[in-house]
Amino acid sequence: MELKAVVFDLDDTLYLSTRFNLFARRQAIEAMMLRGLNVPFSKQWKLLNQIYEEFGSNFEKHYNVLMERLGRKNDYRILSAGVSAHHAAKNLLSYFISPGCFELLLFLKEKHVKIFLLTGGIPVKQWDKLNLLGIADFFDEVFVVEDKHDGRQLNDFLEFYDKLGFKRSDCFMIGDREDVDVKPMKKLGFKTIRVFQGKYSAKKKTTADFKARDLFQVKKILEKNL
Amino acid sequence: MELKAVVFDLDDTLYLSTRFNLFARRQAIEAMMLRGLNVPFSKQWKLLNQIYEEFGSNFEKHYNVLMERLGRKNDYRILSAGVSAHHAAKNLLSYFISPGCFELLLFLKEKHVKIFLLTGGIPVKQWDKLNLLGIADFFDEVFVVEDKHDGRQLNDFLEFYDKLGFKRSDCFMIGDREDVDVKPMKKLGFKTIRVFQGKYSAKKKTTADFKARDLFQVKKILEKNL
Repeated sequence: MELKAVVFDLDDTLYLSTRFNLFARRQAIEAMMLRGLNVPFSKQWKLLNQIYEEFGSNFEKHYNVLMERLGRKNDYRILSAGVSAHHAAKNLLSYFISPGCFELLLFLKEKHVKIFLLTGGIPVKQWDKLNLLGIADFFDEVFVVEDKHDGRQLNDFLEFYDKLGFKRSDCFMIGDREDVDVKPMKKLGFKTIRVFQGKYSAKKKTTADFKARDLFQVKKILEKNL
Repeated sequence: MELKAVVFDLDDTLYLSTRFNLFARRQAIEAMMLRGLNVPFSKQWKLLNQIYEEFGSNFEKHYNVLMERLGRKNDYRILSAGVSAHHAAKNLLSYFISPGCFELLLFLKEKHVKIFLLTGGIPVKQWDKLNLLGIADFFDEVFVVEDKHDGRQLNDFLEFYDKLGFKRSDCFMIGDREDVDVKPMKKLGFKTIRVFQGKYSAKKKTTADFKARDLFQVKKILEKNL
């Protein structure tokens, strides 16, 4: 192959979202306890993580539900402390960049490989991460789709990619998830690397062309496939 | 009279919301320009303030509208920088407490005067301000109503107040606005002090019992009415 382009996933690939999310939730619970929420940390922790599982990360009212389930529905004094502390945690977001991220992106730049981002979520939230991580300017193009499960949403990216005139097999897709990253992109003809970071890393079975523990290993794989 | 209680408004009374809002908007525009929005500051400033006038401060998408009106609707890279910088400004919220606020609240505590808050807005946002300003614990009771224009919304507060057994004329209402603070509370029998802070301070006409430039003057007025 002739490596022409790399398509990255963001969460738990270039950015350790699972670790950051746990950090922000811990900060929030801590702040609520300091403002007087007399419920053991472990109980809140379990409940809050369940609520995130149940409603998904793009839901806007995790802490409202937590307070409701703790029988403190209208205690805005404490609720606001949690929400505020969770948001304030973003000031430290740049520490949660995946180790090796800058090395990898700089290496690709030097080799004149195109760099794309293909991520699921809410555009302004995903861009916020890129800005706070300080990596926004590395990308030749960024695609934020609502739902990577929905193949149709990849159309914008595919149309753009195919216009470039590169073979799909000359492009690597790098992501953490089997279902939304590896499988659909492999099916479309892209080469794939699965990075075992974050909450999906326990599921070891993969159809990816390559496996990597972190971005340092990704760099090595790409070097060999230049 | 025998001063038994004081009811405070929050925005532009205990907290200089107008000044903070202008600060946060400046920070946001600055961040957007640094991320590449090549539109003169003065143009953005005028537009953004118009948008706040038009949609009100509890609208959630001021910066989306700004970008739309600048013909950059889907430029999430820049949009996110603005939104993020505006929120980050909250880290400095405690500097925007009204001068004399702590002195006044501590004075009332010493004199065993009850302290209430009666504010319009979204509960979690108003509580967030109290927490960030560090004054949440001073209040004997906090009432956040959606709309102080709507007299019916004062019912919770009135019911609570009247149960205390104090005469309404033994309680001062302190706020910055003629329409939602002074008039309705005076009509209900409370004593009123209008504080000339923030964007409503230009309209000088008032029916308030007392006028004050700031919270130091409020303290003097209350001392004389103990």
